[in-house]
Amino acid sequence: MTTDTTSAELVRIIREPLVECVHRGRVAVWHHDSGLIASWGDVEARILPRSAIKMMQALPLVESGAADAAGLSDTRLALACASHQGAAIHTDTVTTWLADIGRGEADLRCGPQMPSDEPAAHAMIRAHGHPDQRHNNCSGKHTGFLTLAKHLGAGPEYLEIDHPVQRAVRTAIEEVTGETCDQYAIDGCSAPNFAVSLKGFARGLAAFAAADGTGVRGAAMTRLRSAMMAHPEYVAGEGRACTRLMRTMGGRAAIKTGAEGVYAAIVPERRLGIAIKIEDGATRAAEAAIASMLVGTGVLHAEDPEALSLMHGPIRNRRDLVTGHMELAPGFAGWTP
Amino acid sequence: MTTDTTSAELVRIIREPLVECVHRGRVAVWHHDSGLIASWGDVEARILPRSAIKMMQALPLVESGAADAAGLSDTRLALACASHQGAAIHTDTVTTWLADIGRGEADLRCGPQMPSDEPAAHAMIRAHGHPDQRHNNCSGKHTGFLTLAKHLGAGPEYLEIDHPVQRAVRTAIEEVTGETCDQYAIDGCSAPNFAVSLKGFARGLAAFAAADGTGVRGAAMTRLRSAMMAHPEYVAGEGRACTRLMRTMGGRAAIKTGAEGVYAAIVPERRLGIAIKIEDGATRAAEAAIASMLVGTGVLHAEDPEALSLMHGPIRNRRDLVTGHMELAPGFAGWTP
Repeated sequence: MTTDTTSAELVRIIREPLVECVHRGRVAVWHHDSGLIASWGDVEARILPRSAIKMMQALPLVESGAADAAGLSDTRLALACASHQGAAIHTDTVTTWLADIGRGEADLRCGPQMPSDEPAAHAMIRAHGHPDQRHNNCSGKHTGFLTLAKHLGAGPEYLEIDHPVQRAVRTAIEEVTGETCDQYAIDGCSAPNFAVSLKGFARGLAAFAAADGTGVRGAAMTRLRSAMMAHPEYVAGEGRACTRLMRTMGGRAAIKTGAEGVYAAIVPERRLGIAIKIEDGATRAAEAAIASMLVGTGVLHAEDPEALSLMHGPIRNRRDLVTGHMELAPGFAGWTP
Repeated sequence: MTTDTTSAELVRIIREPLVECVHRGRVAVWHHDSGLIASWGDVEARILPRSAIKMMQALPLVESGAADAAGLSDTRLALACASHQGAAIHTDTVTTWLADIGRGEADLRCGPQMPSDEPAAHAMIRAHGHPDQRHNNCSGKHTGFLTLAKHLGAGPEYLEIDHPVQRAVRTAIEEVTGETCDQYAIDGCSAPNFAVSLKGFARGLAAFAAADGTGVRGAAMTRLRSAMMAHPEYVAGEGRACTRLMRTMGGRAAIKTGAEGVYAAIVPERRLGIAIKIEDGATRAAEAAIASMLVGTGVLHAEDPEALSLMHGPIRNRRDLVTGHMELAPGFAGWTP
């Protein structure tokens, strides 16, 4: 991604009459049976999938039996795959989940984060309060890690690269992507984030799409995918693209955003996995691009208000005047499998 | 800016061991006597300079005699060139300035905006209050427009493209950039934003740099430039790059950010104007790039903590761990005139 040839122009920001900004990126579409069926830019180079890979990081939680041993509900499993915004439904769920496994906020290792949910943030400011680690957008994933660590009888430092939890996460990601994860970076929540190619990431997502509930892995994939689709408000929160799109698609796809312009989609009825990385890290471009790809697969209607909003805007200013819009770049817009 | 050849790679985001993001952009450096002395990417294509052009939008306020007639202080002139963050010093100054010219908040046309200054925002949330137009980051510019409109005896709709205020703004920008401004877009604050080439923008900034206080224009340019450099906290606010860099440079350069990755610099001792546009609109990249260019001109020390922070980071996560850093791209880093 460091040369001009590795990314394709995907999204434009128009402020009439000018093209004000351009976002480039890479996209891989993997069919579980046919392999890579479409791509833009270099899909061999490794990316950091960030939070978009959380459903793969959650596989050992389910496959190990830890989720069943702890009696985890689907809302908790959705939260394990979430980048939530610290609303009450998210932090309350983390609080009770931690209590149920005999752990507490101090056992988390994700760090505190101000809620991005406005009611939660305003309530905290009015109370002169401070966020704790439960408010971190990744606290569901971390509570899942703690649940697995307890089940494995492993130590408290569950983020260490050679801790049984992270070894299990690495193995699961390697198996579903078909790649060796010998590189990782430290994520915003301090967890290891294993580098994968965009192609391998899409391949793993396609495995989630094709899972039919059979076998340990197939059952875990189906369960996590279903939990995400059944509880979109737990995977992100009100107003967020993941929640809005999963709601409007009504169980036809599971999607997940990641920091720095990553987006992932699982489309069961098409047996497709889709992985997107925006070169410059812009969320607005990743959201427009994933909406466009979902429209292409047929699980999101092109005229759906949420799809239109993310793909085209309009962009409004502080007096609510329309000052611009977004466009999908020629050569990217209009894809169908 | 819509093809691969028009932008150069300027800034990289590193999350070890990977290059996680790349920001491309264009840079023009204009010497008042020698013309264009350095450039990256296409500097002929037009951009929307957004708020980075506010010092040029303020020229008619001073040149018309309106500023003197209203007895404007240097802090008010700095605020006329500002994208402030709605701190008390900003909104209090707008309030008294409006009163002094017999106008009020309802005469503004910029729309309300939540303060980005944290103490101001928290106080407003705790009081269950709402922002008004004085909190808009452009309210100083708009109060300047109202001051000019009053001086000219013109009507209240000072944002209309054929209003005497906007006609004067257009003429000033055309004269200092040497271009015809026959295209404009509507800015976030609802003001017309005239499109200029990056080269023409840098040329205008160089005229500000070379101004020696003589003549109507030279006096206005010197006065605005000096007001910005003397009052960095009025041009942006605590924690913001414009304020931090102007403070540490101690009067050796006036700089101004604009939305969607624009940055402008006036370097009097070098008679240089510098204009930057990041293709994807990222502020972090525009800040790194302008810091690098200022280091190149010699007015900002390469080891200055503010320069290092903007150019290199480090990037820290929610547990304050260093997870990455920024780098200037080869071919851009290390420029000197």
